[in-house]
Order: sequence, then C-alpha cells, then structure tokens
Amino acid sequence: MAYRYFIYFAYNGAAYCGWQRQPNGLAVQEVLGKALSTILRTETEPVAAGRTDAGVHARNMAAHFDSPKPIENLPRLKASLNSLLPRDIAVNRIVRVREDAHARFDAMSRKYEYRIALSKSPFLDGLAAYVHYPLDLDAMNEAAQVLFDYRDFTSFSKVHTDVKTNDCIIMEAGWRQEGDELVFTVKANRFLRNMVRAIVGTLLDVGRGKSTAADVARIIERRDRCAAGHSVPACGLYFLEAEYPPQVFDVE
Amino acid sequence: MAYRYFIYFAYNGAAYCGWQRQPNGLAVQEVLGKALSTILRTETEPVAAGRTDAGVHARNMAAHFDSPKPIENLPRLKASLNSLLPRDIAVNRIVRVREDAHARFDAMSRKYEYRIALSKSPFLDGLAAYVHYPLDLDAMNEAAQVLFDYRDFTSFSKVHTDVKTNDCIIMEAGWRQEGDELVFTVKANRFLRNMVRAIVGTLLDVGRGKSTAADVARIIERRDRCAAGHSVPACGLYFLEAEYPPQVFDVE
Repeated sequence: MAYRYFIYFAYNGAAYCGWQRQPNGLAVQEVLGKALSTILRTETEPVAAGRTDAGVHARNMAAHFDSPKPIENLPRLKASLNSLLPRDIAVNRIVRVREDAHARFDAMSRKYEYRIALSKSPFLDGLAAYVHYPLDLDAMNEAAQVLFDYRDFTSFSKVHTDVKTNDCIIMEAGWRQEGDELVFTVKANRFLRNMVRAIVGTLLDVGRGKSTAADVARIIERRDRCAAGHSVPACGLYFLEAEYPPQVFDVE
Repeated sequence: MAYRYFIYFAYNGAAYCGWQRQPNGLAVQEVLGKALSTILRTETEPVAAGRTDAGVHARNMAAHFDSPKPIENLPRLKASLNSLLPRDIAVNRIVRVREDAHARFDAMSRKYEYRIALSKSPFLDGLAAYVHYPLDLDAMNEAAQVLFDYRDFTSFSKVHTDVKTNDCIIMEAGWRQEGDELVFTVKANRFLRNMVRAIVGTLLDVGRGKSTAADVARIIERRDRCAAGHSVPACGLYFLEAEYPPQVFDVE
C-alpha cells in the first residue's frame, strides 16, 4: 500500500523550461522530484495539476506524490524541502490525500493570473510584463465578459496539440488595477496550451483601441489561432491554484 | 546660468555598491550620471537626498542635476532615460527646481521601509529578508514607540563616521502586516549610517522574545553600538522618499 500526498508549492519560472521534465533544460518537476527523493529516500515523481510553460510562475501549484511509508511529520518535511530546494521554489503545504487522488485528473478548476506593469519598475522585473501604451480597463473588462458566451476556444490554442476537444468552461474572467499593475484573473475547468497568454494578447488589443468586444466574439467564432492577438510574454503569467472535491482529502 | 532639476527614481540595489560613486564597484550614481550625460550631451553628476549602502533599494529617491540649457520636454527626457537605463533603475519623474535647490541639504525628512518575509517566497527573493521564527508584531510596535523618546542614536550608528552629531528626530515609526510580509516604516529628519538596519535588528530581538521595549530604551541610553541588535540584511531595506519645502519648486 502507498501513502499519497498533495504538495502545494510556488515557483519563479524564470530559470526553468516549465513544469514538465524534459530532455533539454531544467524542469521544476525534476528539481522538486529530486528534493522529495532525497528526503524520502526513495524515487519520487510528483504529478502536477497543470503543466506550465517555460518562464511561467506558480503561486500555489498542487502535485501528488507517493510514499511507501506514512509520513509522520508533514511540517518537518515542508521545512526540510524548503531548506533543500533553491530560492525560486518554495513549498507552501503538504497534506495527506486518498490513495487514488490525482492532482491532474481530479482538479475541478484551474485559476491563472496575468500581471501587467504600467510603468518601468525595478521591482517587477521578471514578475510582470511591461506595457508602455495606455490601456482602457473598462473596455478590457467588457471584452473579458465575452469569454463566458463560448465553449470552444480553438482560436486561443497552440496549433498542434493532441487534446480531444478544445472546449473549456470559463468560470471567472476580469481585470483589476493593483497599484501600478493591471491584473487579469481567469478560472476555468481546463485550459488549452498557451490559452491564457493568447486571451491576454487579444484583450490588450481591445485595451489599446485596436479592436472591440465584438471583435473578440468574432475571433472566438473563427476557431482559428491566427485570428487572435499575439501571445504575451511568459514572465507575467502565474498559475494560482487548482480546486479539488472534498472527497480527495477524506482520509481516515 | 544653470537650470536645475530634481529627478525622482527607483532602483533595485542588488547589483550596486550603493548610491555613491566609488573606486571599487558600480554605483547607481555612476549609471544614472552616465545616462544623463549621454542624453543631455554634457557631463552631468546627480546629487541624491541620501546615500544608500550596497544592496539597499530605493522606491522614490530624489537627486538634483544641472543642465546648461532649459530642458523643453521633461516627459521625453524621462522616456529616453528609461530606455537607456538598465532594468534595475527606473525614472519616476523629473521637475524643474530653483537654481539653489539641493537634494541633500534641503531635504526636511527621509523615509525608509524594511520588509520581512514570514515564509519562503520565490517572488520576494532579494526584495525582503526572510525570517523563519515567529514574531510578535504588537511587542515590536510597542518597542518602536520608544524611538520617539530619544534624540541621540549613537547606539544605532556605524562606529567610525565623520558626522558632527548623532541626533535625529524620529517622525514616524511602526510595523504593519502586508500579506505574508511585515513592513517597518520609519521617517526622521536624518539617519545615521546603518541606523535603520540596526533599529530593525534590535526590534526583531523584541519580536522573538529575547528582549523588551524597556531593553530598547536602555540600549539607546548606552550610546554604544555594541549594545544594539545585529544589523539586518540590505535586501530588505528601501529608501522611500525625501520631503522638501514648497519653495524648492517655486520656479517662475
């Protein structure tokens, strides 16, 4: 019998080729897996809720991993991992879950945010995308509402992917101002590859007056990636969290 | 006749040996002076409100500089400087001031903040000091109030400095929680070298229960640097702003 755990963690994606282990480049999965394997003294591979691309950050990513023995002291494991992991990866929390819980398949929703710096800032370098033209927040929020009217987001997907469907249910989408930053938050049951960055690029076109909310509807209806706006840089994108049904944590 | 300007700017101090030009190491003064000299096409040396130490940040430092001709378009100068300057230095604003205005001598007050991260965070790396023990915010605020009862802060000064007096008038001092950070703000007419970092180190001793507000009073009364707590790391310290009398900006 294996004991399964969810580990919640944050990372600055700047130095990584993304979450998923790859032949070329260092992945977060590799670094976290190595730290877990070292401390648990057994080969351990974490499986995450979502696969972030190169340079994308995470504030509270969830992944599951197994241990052959029950782990007595979870706060101590967290402290040991945080000592061992580099400064750009930090463990937030570790909890026991059901043996069959799956960080990817059981996630009911994922939430991302995209951060835009409205002026040059030495403290947002690598943590937000800098936009040097004025943006109309109300127009971008009006256009974001259009997302709720559609399911098929082929227009915002990378062209060659192996998914069976491009349908996503948008649960939350909106912009807010936070000091000298504009922050877009979007939540859906699932996301296609590159989807959030393509949506943000399309909404920025609205914000600078190059297109309208009606244009965004037309772009989605075209079901063609070339119809949408440019993809925005990875450094502004953060995976925030995944939601799970309570049964996942129901361990006696 | 020379035309004098105040330039307000931010910098991430990690890569610099401090504000002031030095034989060993790159100073912010040098980089900003070089950018101004290039764009104004004349040797230009900015003089700042305060000299920050190696690794210390600034959010809105003020400096004065002279131009032999009046500068027609200040927003354009700001944009040119921001293009030319590295990503860790950003100009916030440039304004014309009186010919005899002095960023250092005319400053009526300086304000600093010190940021402490309460948990490991990939996004606060280099931007806050990480403290891994619990801190009592109320006790630290009580101890901060003691600062208002004194003028002579010899206990919080670097040992060998050439200043004539160690008297400072504290105008503001207090801690607040901001998300997963504790932030100490302190304002005074002037600060001694290393003073904020020595104060924060002393208040952290109170926060972790090693000493009390009464001990802080005794430390100040000793007028001896060895009596105070350790100096905290530079990466948590930010120069916020200097205040000037309105006459400085009274240019017809």
